[in-house]
Amino acid sequence: MNTLLDRVDLPLDQMPKRWYNGIPALPTAPEPYIDSTTDAPVTLDYVERLWTKAMAAQEFSLDRWISIPQPVLDAYAMWRPTPLIRAVAMERYLDTPAQIWFKYEATSPSGSHKLNSALAQAYYAKREGHSRLVTDTGAGQWGSALALACQMFGLDLSVFMVRASYHQKPYRRYLMETYGAQVHPSPGVTTEYGRGVLADNPDHPGSEATAVSESLETVRADPAARMSVGAFSNHCLLHQTIIGLELREQLAMIDRYPDYLVASVGCGSNMAGLSTPFMEDKLNGSETTFLAVEPEACAPLTYGEYRFDYADAAGSGPGVCTYTLGHEFVPPPIHAGGLRYHGCAPLIGQMRHQGILDSVAYPQTQVFDAGVTFARLHGFLPAPETCHAIKGVIDLALQCKEQKRDATIVFNYSGHGLLDLEAYGRYNAGELRDVEVESFDEREAQVVG
Amino acid sequence: MNTLLDRVDLPLDQMPKRWYNGIPALPTAPEPYIDSTTDAPVTLDYVERLWTKAMAAQEFSLDRWISIPQPVLDAYAMWRPTPLIRAVAMERYLDTPAQIWFKYEATSPSGSHKLNSALAQAYYAKREGHSRLVTDTGAGQWGSALALACQMFGLDLSVFMVRASYHQKPYRRYLMETYGAQVHPSPGVTTEYGRGVLADNPDHPGSEATAVSESLETVRADPAARMSVGAFSNHCLLHQTIIGLELREQLAMIDRYPDYLVASVGCGSNMAGLSTPFMEDKLNGSETTFLAVEPEACAPLTYGEYRFDYADAAGSGPGVCTYTLGHEFVPPPIHAGGLRYHGCAPLIGQMRHQGILDSVAYPQTQVFDAGVTFARLHGFLPAPETCHAIKGVIDLALQCKEQKRDATIVFNYSGHGLLDLEAYGRYNAGELRDVEVESFDEREAQVVG
Repeated sequence: MNTLLDRVDLPLDQMPKRWYNGIPALPTAPEPYIDSTTDAPVTLDYVERLWTKAMAAQEFSLDRWISIPQPVLDAYAMWRPTPLIRAVAMERYLDTPAQIWFKYEATSPSGSHKLNSALAQAYYAKREGHSRLVTDTGAGQWGSALALACQMFGLDLSVFMVRASYHQKPYRRYLMETYGAQVHPSPGVTTEYGRGVLADNPDHPGSEATAVSESLETVRADPAARMSVGAFSNHCLLHQTIIGLELREQLAMIDRYPDYLVASVGCGSNMAGLSTPFMEDKLNGSETTFLAVEPEACAPLTYGEYRFDYADAAGSGPGVCTYTLGHEFVPPPIHAGGLRYHGCAPLIGQMRHQGILDSVAYPQTQVFDAGVTFARLHGFLPAPETCHAIKGVIDLALQCKEQKRDATIVFNYSGHGLLDLEAYGRYNAGELRDVEVESFDEREAQVVG
Repeated sequence: MNTLLDRVDLPLDQMPKRWYNGIPALPTAPEPYIDSTTDAPVTLDYVERLWTKAMAAQEFSLDRWISIPQPVLDAYAMWRPTPLIRAVAMERYLDTPAQIWFKYEATSPSGSHKLNSALAQAYYAKREGHSRLVTDTGAGQWGSALALACQMFGLDLSVFMVRASYHQKPYRRYLMETYGAQVHPSPGVTTEYGRGVLADNPDHPGSEATAVSESLETVRADPAARMSVGAFSNHCLLHQTIIGLELREQLAMIDRYPDYLVASVGCGSNMAGLSTPFMEDKLNGSETTFLAVEPEACAPLTYGEYRFDYADAAGSGPGVCTYTLGHEFVPPPIHAGGLRYHGCAPLIGQMRHQGILDSVAYPQTQVFDAGVTFARLHGFLPAPETCHAIKGVIDLALQCKEQKRDATIVFNYSGHGLLDLEAYGRYNAGELRDVEVESFDEREAQVVG
């Protein structure tokens, strides 16, 4: 047997042709979205003006299965199906009886799982005759994916990129620009909201929430534009289920079933994509643990409350019921930019609330330590977001060692860290520090890395 | 049919188990290497002290086939066999009747084809009981590959990185350091040669040749160390033949044969790896064109002479017969750092000299233009080195259009450009300029980007 790895490849002609919608499988119906301007449940008109008609329909669909359009399947073939790889070297290093498998999503041209939804959203926007999409991006994984998707389907794209990432990660910006997108730092000067935030604090690091507010304002000012989101919404999580669906096929090929499904959670798209195709089994008695791994500095599932809150910092977007740290919370600028969000997707919040999903949080130095260990054993350099999942997996595998349990642990390798090497450089130089979670109100004094 | 791409995957159990040695197939025996200290042909002792015994044996082997050790095959399985992808979108964009295929080597953990040889060299060094390897790297593709390979097989590694790249591409350095390597800028202060060069010119940008000189000096000072090279030597080119061997299998699966085999050439490892497995066919009458693409600013095959010259800038390493611009030539700091070498591998030089290999050279702005076009059509961001091959392919495909010829063009997608985004950023901003080839002696005045 190979001492480093094993892998299970799904042939292209067996790639799933439908997405799986987890909503109808939930024990209770989701709470409605609230229109912040009326405090009433949102109307279909509201959502169709915000997103595309197709996205609005998918958002509230109760169909179990939704067909993937052929042009999107064609584009998926650029890199899908993704391999399922067994981290044998990691198992040996940890001396664990558990099997550690990962779904390797980093092989996508844009570098992460985000492209699964970006291609779908760009396709539908083009089909409905829109000329432009507007979006927010944290670390830039989503922005890169949508920039490529818009280029492939012939749409303009404006990206509001969290200011801390815009400056820390210029490579991500260059990549989006190479794909043809226009990139603005958020908060920035192109929106009234952004100008207001900067007037109060010219050094505001931004967050996913400020970028969402600026995107909303921009879309509302341009009738030909629609908003596109890389997480949060049901439709976006739906598109990611191709991950879990492929995984089911691959595990069936080797006659295994997951005891643990592990993913990092910023908003929840990679966790939902990995796990919802296994949710009905779980509700019917399978004992799989769904484990969300969060950054200690911004951990709504672990430290937040389950309640209504706004999706964006300005409180001008829809309100949803989910786990949140409060929409005015500005996460410290940790290096896992994609996890800097005050809340999480309503579907993920509901799964946590109903006991389907567990969570754990780690400080970033431990997370990078896990990432470097993985890179040295397996070569692939994980994104800081993905390092969170790896840290969670290491602790589970060590638990299995104590329990002498040969569990099957599967994590989603959501993206590569090649554009995050600045952060690795700082970690290697011993310059990374952890944020004191107790004192968020002294944030400015604690800005890290 | 998919309008974007087609792909041919070789199953893991059909991955070649042997490398192909092109030397015995050449019409004439290669010229001997010359020991610069004696002006006589090198002895086996000389080569075994420089490299490992296994490398010395492979360097002069006349066996057609050489078995790949099982631990190297196991490591290859991390990402091999690599896919053969048809660039349908590119064909449509160029409106050419030609088929454009590429062997996608960028999926390797270190990001390029270089890992094919790095793993073999690290394995043999460990087996022979050495504790340390020393190497030179230009753009950092080779250094990253060897850093990972040394980490996996338990060896220390010192990397001399061309100073221009060390500063322009810190991400590459961080990656090597994450894998556990020690990285020095070349010219640098750890060697006598480096200190001498810096004394003459503190701003010397370095070159592959200065890095080779420093590596040689370092290896000669440490009996436990051996040198490892990422191109140039026959053994290194041998390890890359896994590319062309897989390609043969994949083309056979779709019943095609290449009319053109295209690769960028810095020293020649990716060109040799792609093409030598087709060389016997060519010598027996197949009409495949082997096309080497060089940067206009440093094009030994296109503008150099075929003669004896030294491998390194100091003239202290072995001398070989090959195409060269002279070992004292300092290539301008173009962004394709991996192509900044005054000469080329002796095997490649001989292939060119004997009419087996053709070459063409392009200025870097045209090369980046080709790379951006490819990225927008296919998503994958090519390394600047790979962009050279793409530019060559575009021109061939347009030629085929004029000739109404449905030729099969295959190029080696040698590596990704994700750690070269600084260069793309400059290209996007209109800041890249081409070097005036006429006036190399005024190099300092023309330093680009």
